[in-house]
Amino acid sequence: MTVTRAEVRSGAYYDSVVLMQLQRSLAALPGVLDAGVVMGTDANKAVLAQSGLLTPEIQAALADDLVIVIRAEGDVAAQAALAAQAALDQVDELLTRRRRGVEQEYRPRSLESADQMMPDAQWVLISVPGRYAAGVARQSLRLGKNVFLYSDNVSLDDEVALKQMAAEKGLLVMGPDCGTAIVSGVGLGFANGVRRGPIGVVAAAGTGLQQVTSRIHQLGSGITHALGTGGRDLSEAVGAVTAHQGLDLLSRDPETRVIVIISKPPAPQVADELLRAARSAGKPVVVDFIGYSPPARQVDNLHFATTLDEAADLAVQLATSPPNPQSEFRIPNSIDLARFAPGQRHLRGLFSGGTLAYEALLILQDYLPAVYSNAPLDKDYRLANSMVSQAHTIVDLGEHEFTVGRLHPMLDNDLRIRRLQQEAGDPEVAVILLDVVLGYGAHPDPASELAPAIAEARAKAEEAGRYLEVVAIVVGTDEDPQDMDAQVQQLEEAGARVETSNEAAVRYVGRLLQALDQAAGATHLGSASHLKSVDLTVLHQPLAAINVGLESFTESLMAQGAPVIQVDWQPPAGGNERLMAILERMR
Amino acid sequence: MTVTRAEVRSGAYYDSVVLMQLQRSLAALPGVLDAGVVMGTDANKAVLAQSGLLTPEIQAALADDLVIVIRAEGDVAAQAALAAQAALDQVDELLTRRRRGVEQEYRPRSLESADQMMPDAQWVLISVPGRYAAGVARQSLRLGKNVFLYSDNVSLDDEVALKQMAAEKGLLVMGPDCGTAIVSGVGLGFANGVRRGPIGVVAAAGTGLQQVTSRIHQLGSGITHALGTGGRDLSEAVGAVTAHQGLDLLSRDPETRVIVIISKPPAPQVADELLRAARSAGKPVVVDFIGYSPPARQVDNLHFATTLDEAADLAVQLATSPPNPQSEFRIPNSIDLARFAPGQRHLRGLFSGGTLAYEALLILQDYLPAVYSNAPLDKDYRLANSMVSQAHTIVDLGEHEFTVGRLHPMLDNDLRIRRLQQEAGDPEVAVILLDVVLGYGAHPDPASELAPAIAEARAKAEEAGRYLEVVAIVVGTDEDPQDMDAQVQQLEEAGARVETSNEAAVRYVGRLLQALDQAAGATHLGSASHLKSVDLTVLHQPLAAINVGLESFTESLMAQGAPVIQVDWQPPAGGNERLMAILERMR
Repeated sequence: MTVTRAEVRSGAYYDSVVLMQLQRSLAALPGVLDAGVVMGTDANKAVLAQSGLLTPEIQAALADDLVIVIRAEGDVAAQAALAAQAALDQVDELLTRRRRGVEQEYRPRSLESADQMMPDAQWVLISVPGRYAAGVARQSLRLGKNVFLYSDNVSLDDEVALKQMAAEKGLLVMGPDCGTAIVSGVGLGFANGVRRGPIGVVAAAGTGLQQVTSRIHQLGSGITHALGTGGRDLSEAVGAVTAHQGLDLLSRDPETRVIVIISKPPAPQVADELLRAARSAGKPVVVDFIGYSPPARQVDNLHFATTLDEAADLAVQLATSPPNPQSEFRIPNSIDLARFAPGQRHLRGLFSGGTLAYEALLILQDYLPAVYSNAPLDKDYRLANSMVSQAHTIVDLGEHEFTVGRLHPMLDNDLRIRRLQQEAGDPEVAVILLDVVLGYGAHPDPASELAPAIAEARAKAEEAGRYLEVVAIVVGTDEDPQDMDAQVQQLEEAGARVETSNEAAVRYVGRLLQALDQAAGATHLGSASHLKSVDLTVLHQPLAAINVGLESFTESLMAQGAPVIQVDWQPPAGGNERLMAILERMR
Repeated sequence: MTVTRAEVRSGAYYDSVVLMQLQRSLAALPGVLDAGVVMGTDANKAVLAQSGLLTPEIQAALADDLVIVIRAEGDVAAQAALAAQAALDQVDELLTRRRRGVEQEYRPRSLESADQMMPDAQWVLISVPGRYAAGVARQSLRLGKNVFLYSDNVSLDDEVALKQMAAEKGLLVMGPDCGTAIVSGVGLGFANGVRRGPIGVVAAAGTGLQQVTSRIHQLGSGITHALGTGGRDLSEAVGAVTAHQGLDLLSRDPETRVIVIISKPPAPQVADELLRAARSAGKPVVVDFIGYSPPARQVDNLHFATTLDEAADLAVQLATSPPNPQSEFRIPNSIDLARFAPGQRHLRGLFSGGTLAYEALLILQDYLPAVYSNAPLDKDYRLANSMVSQAHTIVDLGEHEFTVGRLHPMLDNDLRIRRLQQEAGDPEVAVILLDVVLGYGAHPDPASELAPAIAEARAKAEEAGRYLEVVAIVVGTDEDPQDMDAQVQQLEEAGARVETSNEAAVRYVGRLLQALDQAAGATHLGSASHLKSVDLTVLHQPLAAINVGLESFTESLMAQGAPVIQVDWQPPAGGNERLMAILERMR
């Protein structure tokens, strides 16, 4: 024989972890077959119905009523009923025993009282059901607190409004649906125990943050702070407000030497702005937009990872042996931008090597919006006439239209020298880039022809009041028949900057043109620029928090030695949403 | 006064470098304003016409006629005419002086005679005009020679036919339009002087090969062989025949410890087959499909670079400190595939961490054609019912449909344990993958519940005559409240393989499933499998070559100390194409 007994306690709110633990304890009692302990929401009633536990009194319960239901068995109905009743009788004791886990003499019933009890708390942790969470978050921001918003089912509109409000006040809202963070060594929500160290993390991916911080710890390094943003933060609608704030904080935090950004691939515009901000961080930034194909392993101070494991690895490497700042940073120090005349902003690349030209076009995508070519990556940027450059141009002089009836440009410099003079006469040209390919089969002494032409072009530009930067990539070795050192020397004496790596040359040119563009005011401003900076004390003071919701979070903070106040939260207006809205408007 | 004088020498073929040098020497003579020295093709006539040098006698010249034209000036016409004539009179002497550069007593007029003079020559270098080049290449293959085909303007049909013919004979055709190669330390075409070393290169990109080999030399390492393929080799039509042959040769070459593959992004099917072959190379392979976004930095023995500079860097690093073979190679040695029952081939991943599930789906793309999920990368692979797996499946148990009315799977293992038993009972399932996330906020002892369930699932499978591989990713640290070591030990004692990196776990699973698939004969064969292997002696004997075309190539080989015969090549049948075709058919 089985018997089902239910009890409804009105207006008694408990969090889901507490209820689950109570349910388990009840189900383990003698004679009990099944137990349900839930708040009386429609969703929970549906789950109880599936298990055959929905009695008429539960059907009538309200959202903020605590519902307890027991199915028990016995040889006769009376015995089963006795077992069920015995279980129900133990509910209070089990709840009290549980509550003893959180030792706190007085539990404030409101956030305001909690704030008075612990005015130094910079954080409020919120894990109440989603329909109440935005209200609690708003109240927290009004009190000047930063918010760790664990709750999900918060609307997008609420998220945007909360983050806008936070940004205006210089406060952080991590979440909604933010499962994890580590602030000043204290884990919030789900978080691993990791030692403190030189690496800061901004993550829109919960277990992503946990995997990366755990791996960093396993590799012997540690974390300054790991800030969660919630999964929707990097969407078009939210515009990565929290990620920008987090990145800005970690950029300014002197203890953070390397920053890691983790997210599923963001909206393209959002990714673009965030990467732009990351490039100004002044320290190495490891980016793992999980599944996003990065343009390169490294662009200046940005290091792209394609897996979480690799992001951790790279961050630890960078923290251990920081890269040479010269190769990392963005504006070439050796160049005085003021030497260029105001109209000078374009690049003309004159290549003899087809693959070098192709790679140059690819790398320049990291720096310039569009580069024209006779062999472009995208046909929209095909030169109307290969003989005439437009804006930024890379010409491959080894293409058919240039080689009919003449030798390959690696053998014959005439055409290239003529084009060099033509480009040097254009007042919009700031930089000329060319390759000099040495080796067997090539011209026996290309610099003897190119160097005087470079010197002449630079002199003419100077006469016209301009400064012409000439960058040459010398492809060759000390075993080549041409005497590479002498070739480099001739080119340098003519005033050219010489590199032996195509990538290094092209990235130098890209950075220079970007700097010229920015100096001309043509730069776009990252979306972060209108936000009020979050005060660094949020990371530098020992963490103290008010917890509204899951008691287990209070237990975790206590276990980590962080001061915390648990609010004895109850749904406002007894869970009546219309009344809640009225109360909210009255504030 | 200016005068233009022309001379046409019928049936006198010279290569374009020789002609260009003669033209320059003539233009430098006193009184000479301009000089043209070309073969009498229509294209060349058009170029002469542009410079106003097209006289009636040149207009009448044939393709294999040598045309020399001089424009000279003088105070009076007679003086100009004298200067022009004086220049023309020096043509023979200038040609003879030039020819002395190549010291060779007897110049054979045919490939056959050259072969008799130097039967050990394994290579023929061909740089005659494109319309003749396929014929010379075919003749070379018939003589059992490998071909370095510098000439461009060879038709795609000819390329396919030549490479098919070469593959059947176990010979190489590098090109057409192959500008560069290094074989056994000797540079062919345009090539830099690089020391010999442990790195082999296969390249479909001319200056790409030069940049990478030069950088490798600059970084202190060196090259075994660098094989060019010609730019069209990796197209759909050609199917990368030469690249496959080159990769196969370098795989078998014991001196080559690291292989580098360079190309513009190939046709997708071709890339797929080439990467498949590269994964079987048995040594690290650095791949730079310039501008192609790689799936990861590393997939087993494949290391992806995004720039030429990086490809060189990576190759030198890998040659200096070879990676741990365990992490490199493809089939997990620890697994005895025979333990699995014949029908077992599917994966079931049961994740509590959303980001970990997402990253697993991404990484598995490197190994499996399709993985179903309730949160798939591609909606075509959405599970019809989240509760029921199909084929390879990754389930994110943190998704909404699983968490309504219950705790997050990081806190509550019940649902996962039930699903684990369900999957273990499926006779198609070979591997179960699950994450165990430790830390604050998570379940206090997840292994105490999961380990017995894993042991039970494995035992049940064994009873049914199957082997069940269970792989667990433990995300956590030694500072977590759960005692990570004890968690790992419990799981291992239950028979699970434990990793602390999601990537490592997922790649292990991917390799295992791929191995099972291959054992089941479901593998696709790379296109290389039907080719006859090229004999390694082509790389191991000192290079000796016959050169047909540009004399400068013979000079380069001589300068490098390689035995070479220059053929005194003339267009067959006086350049008459119809006659050439008849001669060709008569062979």
